[in-house]
Amino acid sequence: MRRITFLLLAIAVLTMAAGDITGAPAQAGEEADPVFGIKIYPGYRDWRLISVAREDGNLNDLRAVLGNDVAIMAYREGMLPFPDGTVIARIAWKSVPSQENNKVFGRAQSFVPGGQPEWYLQFMVKDSKKYATTGGWGFAQFDKDGKPAEEAKHNTCFPCHEPGKAHDYVFTSYAP
Amino acid sequence: MRRITFLLLAIAVLTMAAGDITGAPAQAGEEADPVFGIKIYPGYRDWRLISVAREDGNLNDLRAVLGNDVAIMAYREGMLPFPDGTVIARIAWKSVPSQENNKVFGRAQSFVPGGQPEWYLQFMVKDSKKYATTGGWGFAQFDKDGKPAEEAKHNTCFPCHEPGKAHDYVFTSYAP
Repeated sequence: MRRITFLLLAIAVLTMAAGDITGAPAQAGEEADPVFGIKIYPGYRDWRLISVAREDGNLNDLRAVLGNDVAIMAYREGMLPFPDGTVIARIAWKSVPSQENNKVFGRAQSFVPGGQPEWYLQFMVKDSKKYATTGGWGFAQFDKDGKPAEEAKHNTCFPCHEPGKAHDYVFTSYAP
Repeated sequence: MRRITFLLLAIAVLTMAAGDITGAPAQAGEEADPVFGIKIYPGYRDWRLISVAREDGNLNDLRAVLGNDVAIMAYREGMLPFPDGTVIARIAWKSVPSQENNKVFGRAQSFVPGGQPEWYLQFMVKDSKKYATTGGWGFAQFDKDGKPAEEAKHNTCFPCHEPGKAHDYVFTSYAP
């Protein structure tokens, strides 16, 4: 019971802190996405790591998924659904071979970030009231100049995330 | 000038903080590595992200490179050599296909962390006096149970890092 009280208190404090951040100006661009009204969160690059990923094919990128304090707490406590105030950021970089690493390893095996692809930054923002029609989540995608994708693109976010309903529409697991 | 003073002050404060951490007990294991005397840093999983990487071949893993506050500041300020107190952590996870992601993307292209490989955790610790004979760096490698690698393994760290002398023996660049 004390543990639950502590968690609820922690969520309240972190949600307030997240609220402060939401209102602040964006780092790379001032423009909000046209569907969910989300701007680039200042300081997102300082958030803690949830996991990493690799997409082959046309995307051919390496990814980091970062979370604000509410997100990290929710992941580590196994909270589902994620509480309001959760924000998850996905950064992608072009995957390029590292000649220097390959030389050290003695074989061609090493890939590292090599610049930002067209759609380098995405956010998922939990607000169960504001985004009630899309599973409680707002979605935003920004290009490497900090410009949000157009309306049609943002309307594809939730349909793609719907198969992940069992884990609150979030595909990324926490990598311990 | 004020900027330099600020940076020096920041390094002093962060180094003291790093010193506090160094003395604390390890999270996953109490055992220090047999060559450099480094233990697993408590709280390293909360450090900020420097970059990600992918190794194919026998390793077949996905990696995150995290840094303590001194490391992140040094990277962002482009400081070379890295100041004393810098600690860089490298975590590796087995790279496994994500069936769920592939279903959403409509093709087999997605790889995510799938458990910890044998040598899942490494640290580089900058202490120019203590580690003067190895470029100012101490090295440590731990297995998934938090046990350090043996002496012979640790003696291979610096020779492998020597080709990176021009950037202070650190191979990973900061991914913006």
